[in-house]
Amino acid sequence: MDKYMQAALDEAHQGLAEGGIPIGSVLVYRGRILGRGHNRRVQSGSTVLHGEMDALENAGRQPASVYRDCVLYTTLSPCPMCSGAILLYGIPRVVVGENRSFMGEEALLRSRGVDVEVLQSPACIDMMSDFIEASPELWNEDIGE
Amino acid sequence: MDKYMQAALDEAHQGLAEGGIPIGSVLVYRGRILGRGHNRRVQSGSTVLHGEMDALENAGRQPASVYRDCVLYTTLSPCPMCSGAILLYGIPRVVVGENRSFMGEEALLRSRGVDVEVLQSPACIDMMSDFIEASPELWNEDIGE
Repeated sequence: MDKYMQAALDEAHQGLAEGGIPIGSVLVYRGRILGRGHNRRVQSGSTVLHGEMDALENAGRQPASVYRDCVLYTTLSPCPMCSGAILLYGIPRVVVGENRSFMGEEALLRSRGVDVEVLQSPACIDMMSDFIEASPELWNEDIGE
Repeated sequence: MDKYMQAALDEAHQGLAEGGIPIGSVLVYRGRILGRGHNRRVQSGSTVLHGEMDALENAGRQPASVYRDCVLYTTLSPCPMCSGAILLYGIPRVVVGENRSFMGEEALLRSRGVDVEVLQSPACIDMMSDFIEASPELWNEDIGE
């Protein structure tokens, strides 16, 4: 597996070990990880720190020129909120671990010119499908259902 | 002014007094303010806590049924990230203080069935235009430009 997706998967596993929702993400600027994060709904009672948002938050304040040269890696297809953050900051490329467990706003992202690659990683699919089966209520809360 | 928009404006003024970007928001459930917040870019170094996001975060974890019966008030037209959060949680109605300083994703929200009302409040317009004139670099950073 690509080392950046592996880093996102490591974040997801860390979240699971903390009792949280296993979605992880890293923001990569010219080959360097600027920020990494994972879903904080359970751990911090956060409604906004999805994995991608946590990675963006942990990357800190960056000029637009940096975001324009970043790639965001996430273990799961990005929801409307995280997709909106990608659009806000003009991140040009997103690599998605899988979209079988959840289809996010990939079509919206592509319609705005974002390059979205979906790996359909078995490791990501298995992790997420196991979690959704074990904790359907928590999962539904996280996607507003 | 409507008491909820006044509460959002109060949040924006508080943010300004803290040296921050003056955008405020409140999440209202059946007439009760569940969460209030303002932009935290300067105060917390946050890239994700726009006013609307801060209000959602401060409202805490809520079931989908609550969001479905909420109105989000915000002093400024919501950016892609905040609009995405509105879509994620299925908030059916958004009241916007003004969109002359910045036009957010109102068209996207309406296309997904969200009721968006824009007040064009002089108090909101003056506050934001004064801020943008005084701090254009900070403002541009906040909208990813």
